[in-house]
Amino acid sequence: MDAISVIRTKRDGGRLGDDQIDWVIDAYTKGEVADEQMSALAMAILLNGMDRAEIARWTAAMIASGERMDFSSLPRPTADKHSTGGVGDKITLPLAPLVAACGAAVPQLSGRGLGHTGGTLDKLESIPGWRALLSNEEMLRVLGDSGAVICAAGDGLAPADKKLYALRDVTGTVEAIPLIASSIMSKKIAEGTGSLVLDVKVGSGAFMKNLEQARELASTMVGLGTDHGVRTVALLTGMSTPLGLTAGNALEVRESVEVLAGGGPADVVELTLALAREMLDAAGLKDADPAKALADGSAMDVWRRMISAQGGDPDAELPVARERHVVTAERSGVLTGLDAYAVGVAAWRLGAGRARKEDPVQAGAGVELHAKPGAAVAQGQPLLTLHTDTPEKFGWALEALTGGVEISPAGTAFTADPIVLDRIA
Amino acid sequence: MDAISVIRTKRDGGRLGDDQIDWVIDAYTKGEVADEQMSALAMAILLNGMDRAEIARWTAAMIASGERMDFSSLPRPTADKHSTGGVGDKITLPLAPLVAACGAAVPQLSGRGLGHTGGTLDKLESIPGWRALLSNEEMLRVLGDSGAVICAAGDGLAPADKKLYALRDVTGTVEAIPLIASSIMSKKIAEGTGSLVLDVKVGSGAFMKNLEQARELASTMVGLGTDHGVRTVALLTGMSTPLGLTAGNALEVRESVEVLAGGGPADVVELTLALAREMLDAAGLKDADPAKALADGSAMDVWRRMISAQGGDPDAELPVARERHVVTAERSGVLTGLDAYAVGVAAWRLGAGRARKEDPVQAGAGVELHAKPGAAVAQGQPLLTLHTDTPEKFGWALEALTGGVEISPAGTAFTADPIVLDRIA
Repeated sequence: MDAISVIRTKRDGGRLGDDQIDWVIDAYTKGEVADEQMSALAMAILLNGMDRAEIARWTAAMIASGERMDFSSLPRPTADKHSTGGVGDKITLPLAPLVAACGAAVPQLSGRGLGHTGGTLDKLESIPGWRALLSNEEMLRVLGDSGAVICAAGDGLAPADKKLYALRDVTGTVEAIPLIASSIMSKKIAEGTGSLVLDVKVGSGAFMKNLEQARELASTMVGLGTDHGVRTVALLTGMSTPLGLTAGNALEVRESVEVLAGGGPADVVELTLALAREMLDAAGLKDADPAKALADGSAMDVWRRMISAQGGDPDAELPVARERHVVTAERSGVLTGLDAYAVGVAAWRLGAGRARKEDPVQAGAGVELHAKPGAAVAQGQPLLTLHTDTPEKFGWALEALTGGVEISPAGTAFTADPIVLDRIA
Repeated sequence: MDAISVIRTKRDGGRLGDDQIDWVIDAYTKGEVADEQMSALAMAILLNGMDRAEIARWTAAMIASGERMDFSSLPRPTADKHSTGGVGDKITLPLAPLVAACGAAVPQLSGRGLGHTGGTLDKLESIPGWRALLSNEEMLRVLGDSGAVICAAGDGLAPADKKLYALRDVTGTVEAIPLIASSIMSKKIAEGTGSLVLDVKVGSGAFMKNLEQARELASTMVGLGTDHGVRTVALLTGMSTPLGLTAGNALEVRESVEVLAGGGPADVVELTLALAREMLDAAGLKDADPAKALADGSAMDVWRRMISAQGGDPDAELPVARERHVVTAERSGVLTGLDAYAVGVAAWRLGAGRARKEDPVQAGAGVELHAKPGAAVAQGQPLLTLHTDTPEKFGWALEALTGGVEISPAGTAFTADPIVLDRIA
């Protein structure tokens, strides 16, 4: 078995055999297959595809490259959620404690932001004292005590995926459905959750720009989860405009706490509840009432315990950026478009995100929205506030917003897309 | 400009802009674009292609990555030949001195074998004392004194190609017509020859397995040469069975000397003369008579001067392998197939070729043919002799020959393909 023959098989449109897949993932993890060979194979997979059986084997080989976690000793059923990433997507923050408050255990292994989409760990790190890195023992203790934990995935989980993900990021091979699906599902299956709800984002601010691609990705992942004994459901949700009224780290934590306090923007509350119901259903807790758990403060109680257990102070003042710049409406009318990608890139340029994995992020940076699509606006009215510690970046952020704000004549009819576009189980 | 955006352009089926091509070749030569990025781009080019203008710019960028040679001070017109590589393809050895004997200057920068095809430099190095590595000054002196020189290309010529060629070899991206054409032509144009004849091999023993692919490669290369002011012609020639009666280093030198002495196998003589006539025509020497130069010994005189000038002894005994194994005919009949690829792999396994660039080759190893397709054979008659210093490899070489020898019932009609299949100018 050698790397070139595996590459040639996929390059020439063939299907990879089980032995080829097992060998190439193992040899790549060990460093016997070189990065330049794996990137050529990744490009061949991106352009020539893989069938269901190939994707299943590829995923199994990535799981086998590392350790597997086991939550079967917990008294509660486990439920996890994964989002493919969007702008203003802070849903994990209220959702994990909410689902825990309803009786499930929520082991939420999360990532950092890269590019224009934010990362859950970056957001939580804006809470003074909060730690993302836990040992397996600490993680199990927080999960047992609070019912939920949000932390970084350990190095031992699917190391082949860790290496391949970093390679894809620099070689233009991120956007391959077989590779996206196997990357997400290998980590989630190795993590050992009993049920999983996938939030597959669709629209300008998401990796999947159209519903057809998103459906293919969702059904591929649902199939992989089901085959591995994980009860898996996917919701396809809109990402053409940001979720809620904030995009940025501390800004999004503040909004999440509002949701946990029974308030918050309607779209964030709606999506949080929709995902909570799916997670509770998949975990066999069909009688739980997440709307009640938001209203009666029990979700907020779990949040406070979970943040404290990881060293964070739930009552601490959150960081605020040093400088602000307000963007106003250029004319009066109806706000008919506020593009998620444009806002995501602006937040990223203001310092909320990172260009390279090793870059730091600014806790206070980001974009605050004062109106959502459908709102009537008057000329000169504030539309957005930009926050940053590096005001020299305002110009660069404003450039990203060019064409991203659309105001139509007063009286123009506007119908917002539904939050949940489709459900795949 | 960044590598990922260049990769994405080609991945998504777009055409690369001039600035993208110039940037990526320059940055790759300097090490700013990583091997894993270039291999992903190479795979995207292999699968999505490049148009004529992209290939032309890619070639120009590879030429610009290094120095250019200049033979305009020579009193004779320059003519060069390039073969895409075959089994038993020793044609450069008699051809270069023959064309020089007819009045052209022949600066033949050659390569080493890799895989199942032999390399001209490996063959000549079986001559005791002969040196492939010459400085530019030495090369010009040998060319001026002998009329011909066969030597290794210096490191300064198209360094981008050198780096990319080594990368393609280990990433399954060799078989891309745009990359093959630009690799060959960037070196030949940088070398500064006035005219060039391409021998594009077609068949099992060649990179191009069918006539259609070979025609596309040939016309791409002829276009590139013509655009750069090099008079370029391509012959498409058969490579379904080995050329001549030998495949191996010293074995092929011996056969080449027979041709220069006015003898040798008919197919080798025919192809040598056909290529010589094209080279002389392209160099403007239409009245030259290469058949006469073979018959009257003037080509042999140039050969002896050229070999001596590079430290070789034209009268030395050539190395002979320590062990032999004779393959006989399994039945009587007509030899209707002797597969070039099978013989090439057998010769390679016997030690005539190398698996990795840094491996040594055996001077005496290879395969000797006792019959060519079309010959009547009797059961038990010797068909092939295998030569090697490592007799433990006989079994492995015989395995390569399985299915490569085809004997049909006596009386079966057999028509050999012509040597020259097509001409593209």
